[in-house]
Amino acid sequence: MKKLSDFVYGIVGLGLMGGSLGKAIRENILSVPGCTGKIYGSDINSASLDLASRQHICDRVFSAEDVDSMLGECDFVYICLYPHATVDFLKQHRDSFKSGSIVSDISGVKALVFDSLNDFYRPDVDFIPGHPMAGSEKEGYANSSGGIFRNHNYIVMPLETNSRENVELFKTLVGGLGFTRVVETDAKIHDHKIAFTSQLCHVIASSLVDSAEDDSITAFGGGSFEDLTRIALINAPLWTELFLANKRELLSHIDKFTESLGRLRDEIEKGEDEKIRLYLENVRTRRMAMARTDLKCGK
Amino acid sequence: MKKLSDFVYGIVGLGLMGGSLGKAIRENILSVPGCTGKIYGSDINSASLDLASRQHICDRVFSAEDVDSMLGECDFVYICLYPHATVDFLKQHRDSFKSGSIVSDISGVKALVFDSLNDFYRPDVDFIPGHPMAGSEKEGYANSSGGIFRNHNYIVMPLETNSRENVELFKTLVGGLGFTRVVETDAKIHDHKIAFTSQLCHVIASSLVDSAEDDSITAFGGGSFEDLTRIALINAPLWTELFLANKRELLSHIDKFTESLGRLRDEIEKGEDEKIRLYLENVRTRRMAMARTDLKCGK
Repeated sequence: MKKLSDFVYGIVGLGLMGGSLGKAIRENILSVPGCTGKIYGSDINSASLDLASRQHICDRVFSAEDVDSMLGECDFVYICLYPHATVDFLKQHRDSFKSGSIVSDISGVKALVFDSLNDFYRPDVDFIPGHPMAGSEKEGYANSSGGIFRNHNYIVMPLETNSRENVELFKTLVGGLGFTRVVETDAKIHDHKIAFTSQLCHVIASSLVDSAEDDSITAFGGGSFEDLTRIALINAPLWTELFLANKRELLSHIDKFTESLGRLRDEIEKGEDEKIRLYLENVRTRRMAMARTDLKCGK
Repeated sequence: MKKLSDFVYGIVGLGLMGGSLGKAIRENILSVPGCTGKIYGSDINSASLDLASRQHICDRVFSAEDVDSMLGECDFVYICLYPHATVDFLKQHRDSFKSGSIVSDISGVKALVFDSLNDFYRPDVDFIPGHPMAGSEKEGYANSSGGIFRNHNYIVMPLETNSRENVELFKTLVGGLGFTRVVETDAKIHDHKIAFTSQLCHVIASSLVDSAEDDSITAFGGGSFEDLTRIALINAPLWTELFLANKRELLSHIDKFTESLGRLRDEIEKGEDEKIRLYLENVRTRRMAMARTDLKCGK
């Protein structure tokens, strides 16, 4: 069986994530002495392709029109596109993937990908859905970095049709890129949990900035507001798509959060100091337990 | 006029903030060659006093019972207590401060301090209200550090009775401790702004943790949830007091935030992608402007 360091990797979409994955593969997987692996990249933006070539991240680059010829040569293809574009790409280029190859995606919502599985299924190509839980508030290839994955989580949602060997190989790759915890689950649980840890947080950060009375408020900041709203430097088209693609789960978390907030608000209004103190003590205890969940995994 | 490096500093309350201020004074103000300045400290916790002595942060320490003899020797007294305790202390020990001394506090809510000004006013002691916008989710002297103030904001609320010379001296001290921006304002504006940048953020972070369905949610985290809830490792008694002491302002900000959140929620429910995108683009633009407010001040 071929080793990861001898694979030909194909990255579809050299944005922040595709670029960062390419750099992490170059730095960590293709740095083994004597390895024969290569990285190919495709994007609609020729400036990103040029930069990836000049930086020696991609051995060969392909325009969007030529992507089929790239797919035919790749042992592993990373689709690094927005959720709907991911599904469209998999459908349109279904017949171009190399027989025996592994394909994965990075879509932050999985329901729409799983709903279309039959439309791009091929018995000789192993599509393993995944979600690298890392990113940046900065966009595009120019802001990509091979280091953003260290100590982060990776969620893998293997299909019944996946070969166990390929899933293990994929998890080895992911560990090599710097991710320290690989969680295996299904699309339903993924979308439910991610609606809380990721989408709800972006909704809250955005609403907090939206509710600020002026933009010079940071003159009165001590770090809390800045920490809570860094992710409000948001990629609007991407997050609009993510919010809507996971609407039902996200709405239920927003409502649960609003209820918790309303309870604390009412205790403050009524001046119930003992109840507020208990609410906050419980929160502190829970947040410490959550931090231990991190620690257990080497963070 | 005496130089800051020759002052006798008295710190009332050697917790996280008092300890950090003591260390920052030792490291930055009393490190001038030949200076004669000293730091005295008082606390109800004798272990904190012992540690501050052994670490050579305090030249002399005083039990709470002996604090009056300390106050009589200090050129500058930092009251580092909770808001109500600050007011109580200033009233009870009004007659013990050294004539000509400067006194400041660190209370995160100022209305209750200003409401009591007449109860502890002395024409020969300059009380300059202030609020260092820095802290930590870790409590107590053992977690204090002289470095936590670097690049942070300090809010000063001079009184009409303050000598301008003393206010400038205080601002020089604060700059020496590492704070890069000193904002001068009044108690009303302070409490209104701080209810947003600080208290509302702690309310949101706490409600977000409270609404989590289980404590292993961080296995699905990518950093956003962790960043939004670090401040939920909250000092429950202190923040209960802060929330209630600034209730009116805090409630108005919670309501405005809830309204913004509800608007985004409804747009998501109705699937209005164009409105969501505009909401998020406006948020991104505003957050970038807020970051520039930081940058202007050397952050």
